[in-house]
Amino acid sequence: MGTHALEELIRYTPDKILKIYTVQNKKSPLIQKAKDLGIPIIFVPEAMLTKMAGSDSHQMLVAHIKGRTFLDVKDFLKTAQEESFVLMMDQIFDPQNFGALIRSAECFGAAAVAWSKNRGTDLTPVVAKASSGASEFIPLIRVSNLATAVDQFKEDGFEIVAAILDPESESAYTFNFSPRTVLIVGSEGEGIQPLLRKKADRSIYLPMAGRIGSLNVAQATAALLALFRRSGPG
Amino acid sequence: MGTHALEELIRYTPDKILKIYTVQNKKSPLIQKAKDLGIPIIFVPEAMLTKMAGSDSHQMLVAHIKGRTFLDVKDFLKTAQEESFVLMMDQIFDPQNFGALIRSAECFGAAAVAWSKNRGTDLTPVVAKASSGASEFIPLIRVSNLATAVDQFKEDGFEIVAAILDPESESAYTFNFSPRTVLIVGSEGEGIQPLLRKKADRSIYLPMAGRIGSLNVAQATAALLALFRRSGPG
Repeated sequence: MGTHALEELIRYTPDKILKIYTVQNKKSPLIQKAKDLGIPIIFVPEAMLTKMAGSDSHQMLVAHIKGRTFLDVKDFLKTAQEESFVLMMDQIFDPQNFGALIRSAECFGAAAVAWSKNRGTDLTPVVAKASSGASEFIPLIRVSNLATAVDQFKEDGFEIVAAILDPESESAYTFNFSPRTVLIVGSEGEGIQPLLRKKADRSIYLPMAGRIGSLNVAQATAALLALFRRSGPG
Repeated sequence: MGTHALEELIRYTPDKILKIYTVQNKKSPLIQKAKDLGIPIIFVPEAMLTKMAGSDSHQMLVAHIKGRTFLDVKDFLKTAQEESFVLMMDQIFDPQNFGALIRSAECFGAAAVAWSKNRGTDLTPVVAKASSGASEFIPLIRVSNLATAVDQFKEDGFEIVAAILDPESESAYTFNFSPRTVLIVGSEGEGIQPLLRKKADRSIYLPMAGRIGSLNVAQATAALLALFRRSGPG
């Protein structure tokens, strides 16, 4: 849902759009573009858009897209490159943060994002919008149990790195990343669940210079992804 | 306003709090802590809190703090260190982004944040809350004209770096930062005003690997600040 998410869909994967729902008097160049592409435009009352999207911030634009494909870890590992960075999200309950994390992962070229449908929010229309459509472009690993997923990644040579704000973690500024890395991030309040912390091979933190002492998870993760990209694996 | 911002204030600068306004039936350990510190607690109707804060997301807690001191560039330069990183915000209209930028600047140890009260949002209670209280801990340079401010920084040996998402900019991954740097960031929609772009000594961008092609300004800036901290000036 939303103008920006729809714009990205029309630009990159118009064939994924089955229908666009909007209101009769909606003026948007996107609607003409969609028509030109042969995408059916359906007019519905605003209340129905809100119901379909599960939110009222749809900006009068909701797209019905072809069923999203979720991978499990085994599917993903079949085609995983020698250099693969996976962002694993644990207990992220805020859909804005969840969307921002997917967007960052996509922008920094992560191979996939992974999360548990039982821990934190799931991929809702609000999340898709907050990701600016990035959730359509990055492989999505959706599992029921993150601890099992971690074991599967480990068996395939992935190093598991937990982001834990603690001076006992290794500094992100000097961290030597492995070619195959799973970075686990948690929510601000809850952090990462103890079992995952225990399973992690190493932990990483961003040294904070100020008095506030902690960044929002979306900003912190963008910083970690940039540092990973800069230093490169190895 | 808000629980988290007030918590940080009580922890670090309780002497800045003149009064706390709340509602009669508010239960919060912060109120007892404030009482123990001798801070007057004033009960008011919820509608008055909303009016005072200019927003209804105050979580029933609004603090009246001692007048914030805004610096002008000359004040700041009098005490600026040889190594100083200043984050300048141009045309940031979204208070959540504005607050997140201040929070990132504080966390990564920037010497100050700078903005124009005539371009973008100003420091409102919503911004202060979004910054998690960081706006109380970092020097705030509030000017009427950013172009004049840039000239003043330049005269004092600061290099002016504009964040411009354009392959003609230098890559953030190999950028050699000067010890005295002003980083200018703009909003997602508007970018940085042309006059400031022209005045900048260099421009920087984060190479994006995915198809979405751009991060939210708060995430992008956190990444740039982390890269600055990692490579260090020089």
